[in-house]
Amino acid sequence: MEVRIELKPGVMDPEAESVEKSLALLGLTSVPHVTTARIYDLEFHGVSISEARQLADEAVERLLANPVIHRVTVRRGPT
Amino acid sequence: MEVRIELKPGVMDPEAESVEKSLALLGLTSVPHVTTARIYDLEFHGVSISEARQLADEAVERLLANPVIHRVTVRRGPT
Repeated sequence: MEVRIELKPGVMDPEAESVEKSLALLGLTSVPHVTTARIYDLEFHGVSISEARQLADEAVERLLANPVIHRVTVRRGPT
Repeated sequence: MEVRIELKPGVMDPEAESVEKSLALLGLTSVPHVTTARIYDLEFHGVSISEARQLADEAVERLLANPVIHRVTVRRGPT
């Protein structure tokens, strides 16, 4: 299962800002708007797809994400 | 353009190890093998797709990735 953790809109993303600034300083001809995300790829063994999804949801809720600032997507993956 | 940066096989991933240990401590009924990746979503404006890809490749090479330890995929996205 691939867990993708992004910041909610409006939450500061200092790493993304720093990337934008650095790309501008490097003289890139067009500087993009940057956003970041963290991927956790959880590879379960000996469990069904639906159990794996449930366990991934549990991992997100209890450990990986903070619902106040994070938007989370869980999908079968990685692609 | 979505830039996905993973660690090459054999490179230590302490964050992933820490997630595995924490999930075990939390008593998850099945503990997955965990790998992590970093996503940079680069949103270019006023450039063609092929220019955007070229600029993303340049950003990867000059700033975002270290070819010694990172495996990089660039694709149109996010999905």
